[in-house]
Amino acid sequence: MLTPDFVITDVHLATMDATLDAPYGAITDAALMVQDGHIVWLGKQTDLPEFDHLATPIHSAKGAWLTPGLIDCHTHILFAGSRATEFEQRLQGVSYQEIAAQGGGIARTVGATREADHEALFVLGKQRLNSLLREGVTTVESKSGYGLDLENELKLLEVNRLLDEHHPISVSSTFLGAHAVPPEFKGRADEYITQVCEVMLPLVAERKLADAVDAFCENVGFSYAQTEQVFAAAKALGLPVKCHAEQLSNQHGSELVAKYAGLSADHIEYLDETGVAAMAKAGTVAVLLPSAFYFLRETQQPPIALLRQYQVPIALASDFNPGTAPLCSLRLVLNMGCTLFRLTPEEALAGVTRHAAAALGLTDRGVLKVGMRADLALWQITHPSQLSYQFGVNELLNLWILGKLIQY
Amino acid sequence: MLTPDFVITDVHLATMDATLDAPYGAITDAALMVQDGHIVWLGKQTDLPEFDHLATPIHSAKGAWLTPGLIDCHTHILFAGSRATEFEQRLQGVSYQEIAAQGGGIARTVGATREADHEALFVLGKQRLNSLLREGVTTVESKSGYGLDLENELKLLEVNRLLDEHHPISVSSTFLGAHAVPPEFKGRADEYITQVCEVMLPLVAERKLADAVDAFCENVGFSYAQTEQVFAAAKALGLPVKCHAEQLSNQHGSELVAKYAGLSADHIEYLDETGVAAMAKAGTVAVLLPSAFYFLRETQQPPIALLRQYQVPIALASDFNPGTAPLCSLRLVLNMGCTLFRLTPEEALAGVTRHAAAALGLTDRGVLKVGMRADLALWQITHPSQLSYQFGVNELLNLWILGKLIQY
Ligand SMILES: [Zn+2]
Ligand SMILES: [Zn+2]
Repeated sequence: MLTPDFVITDVHLATMDATLDAPYGAITDAALMVQDGHIVWLGKQTDLPEFDHLATPIHSAKGAWLTPGLIDCHTHILFAGSRATEFEQRLQGVSYQEIAAQGGGIARTVGATREADHEALFVLGKQRLNSLLREGVTTVESKSGYGLDLENELKLLEVNRLLDEHHPISVSSTFLGAHAVPPEFKGRADEYITQVCEVMLPLVAERKLADAVDAFCENVGFSYAQTEQVFAAAKALGLPVKCHAEQLSNQHGSELVAKYAGLSADHIEYLDETGVAAMAKAGTVAVLLPSAFYFLRETQQPPIALLRQYQVPIALASDFNPGTAPLCSLRLVLNMGCTLFRLTPEEALAGVTRHAAAALGLTDRGVLKVGMRADLALWQITHPSQLSYQFGVNELLNLWILGKLIQY
Repeated sequence: MLTPDFVITDVHLATMDATLDAPYGAITDAALMVQDGHIVWLGKQTDLPEFDHLATPIHSAKGAWLTPGLIDCHTHILFAGSRATEFEQRLQGVSYQEIAAQGGGIARTVGATREADHEALFVLGKQRLNSLLREGVTTVESKSGYGLDLENELKLLEVNRLLDEHHPISVSSTFLGAHAVPPEFKGRADEYITQVCEVMLPLVAERKLADAVDAFCENVGFSYAQTEQVFAAAKALGLPVKCHAEQLSNQHGSELVAKYAGLSADHIEYLDETGVAAMAKAGTVAVLLPSAFYFLRETQQPPIALLRQYQVPIALASDFNPGTAPLCSLRLVLNMGCTLFRLTPEEALAGVTRHAAAALGLTDRGVLKVGMRADLALWQITHPSQLSYQFGVNELLNLWILGKLIQY
């Protein structure tokens, strides 16, 4: 006889299990058993196996829908300061050049983030994670990239590890030393990349501070060759790679990350068919970031039809950051993925569950299935499409992470 | 000596008072006194008048910013059912015609709303108001318009009054009988308008169920002549008018509402200079609804430059509704007003405070000023532009409505 920690009954499951032959991998009128933080049984309630009814708490969901906890697989949540006054200046007609001359843009965030200590960044990170938690998010990727020197990049990655330990959300840490050329390396991007590869990366790997390595491959970021240096160094250290690619132009960063069997290519508005084919072959996930697209008022759509045709898994993420996507909401991204990129609600939900887990290389979550982590979100909805449609009224009834009921 | 109910000290005020010569009507290093639910003093803390320190609670804001409680001056929060599955069908490639043939669109919402009783609608309204409350919203306009017959339109307006009474948010009730032609009047719009003017409106006025009367003047809604019938009937009963105008085409609804000295013309993407001039002359507020613009992926921008040139007050509202703006968030609208319509953050904040109050004909709120209601939102921000920039991380520290501290 099974002795689960608890059982959820009278529930509809959007398992997001692609092997089940139903939209959303749905199992209606279902039940689910959790033991030791993991799913030990799920299926039709009529098939519920015997268990010790006296010793087992039963949670009746009263017909609500259960999904995997949501996963935000691309964020820059660790930064200090605000760029709101620059936003205001731009809307008042001040030019980019003038704002940059005043020390604006990413330089402002790097300055404020370098000045912030571990505790200040921990508090900021915690507030932002709390907002995501209240939306049903149970796993968040967090990138470094506003330190841009050894000490401060390590600081950001250390705060990622602290947040993972002390916050209920599971935090995946990504080293993005190659985010921008720091002020002290102005005009010497190659030298900075050498610093990233030969000084920062070995220490990051030795101290196990990152789960993946990212780079910004763009004509305003790093070149294909510079990005490849970073990927080669990461590979030599056994770290998986991902790439900010094809956001503003086609630099073939997606092909490059596929060449290194990378986890994901992110943004990809300017991705072409060759890149899509390379990603499909390598199993690289396409991470779409509609809130950056919205905020920058872009018009170039990512190649959704090609991604579908080549069956490239599509993830969606918030890209929350202080400059180009100041919107800290994964539920809003579900709506934006459908509204702006014309994904179906089922694709959108897969994009923040199954495929978001894949974009982080995580095989223990993102789907409701026996053996998976019991990261569970229970919603007061009558159909899972509602999660991508209505925004702002909180439908979250309960949230469990590793089988533990979360207070939020 | 003053005997206030409480004093807020160490605060920066974004008073939004246009008579003060500072952006946001700002008074930094300030204090504010509340008595009997209203503001009795505000100014520089160094000028704080004598008061009874022993008997008066002092709330130190520790350098946070205080704004007027936010006002959402255009919503359709009272509806039952969801149109998410239609959204899903459309994204799966099903045609509008097919969905309409299945009873989709507004007809579905009208059907579900007619079936819902007062209590069910009250619960739905309360959930939606709670979401807005948590964002710092203290006044919400709520329109009828999904009943479309006498019994059900009265029901919706009655629920507005119940919500106003039992929820901390102040609810302004608008009669929108002329929202759409109900199924039972198909092809007989004139007859329905007669019903609205001769049967519904007199009862609505007699029972004091509405604070204003609205109509949807559009080629897919009601004609200029039909809208004028409604406005004339409302005027005869002493009710102020507003108009859903120029959203999809220029029907001159804005000129019409100005002709009736109306409170506001709402949407107005297709408004021309003649209409803008008429509004300016009549003091009619322009209510912009960027989340409908976003959700419908419109490209025609409202005439912001003309509105500025003619000094027409610009308000911003959520338009939250189940068909064309399923986003229940006024904070998101602040960002969208700036991102999509290029308003400045100061214009956006005025749009959900001072000008939103004007769009509802309310002269006792929307500005921090002696004599005004103590509807106050305290924010953990370092500059008021941040309210229009970053979204999703809740900066709200405290909220007072009529001087009462709100638990949310
Ligand atoms: Zn990014
Ligand atoms: Zn409306």
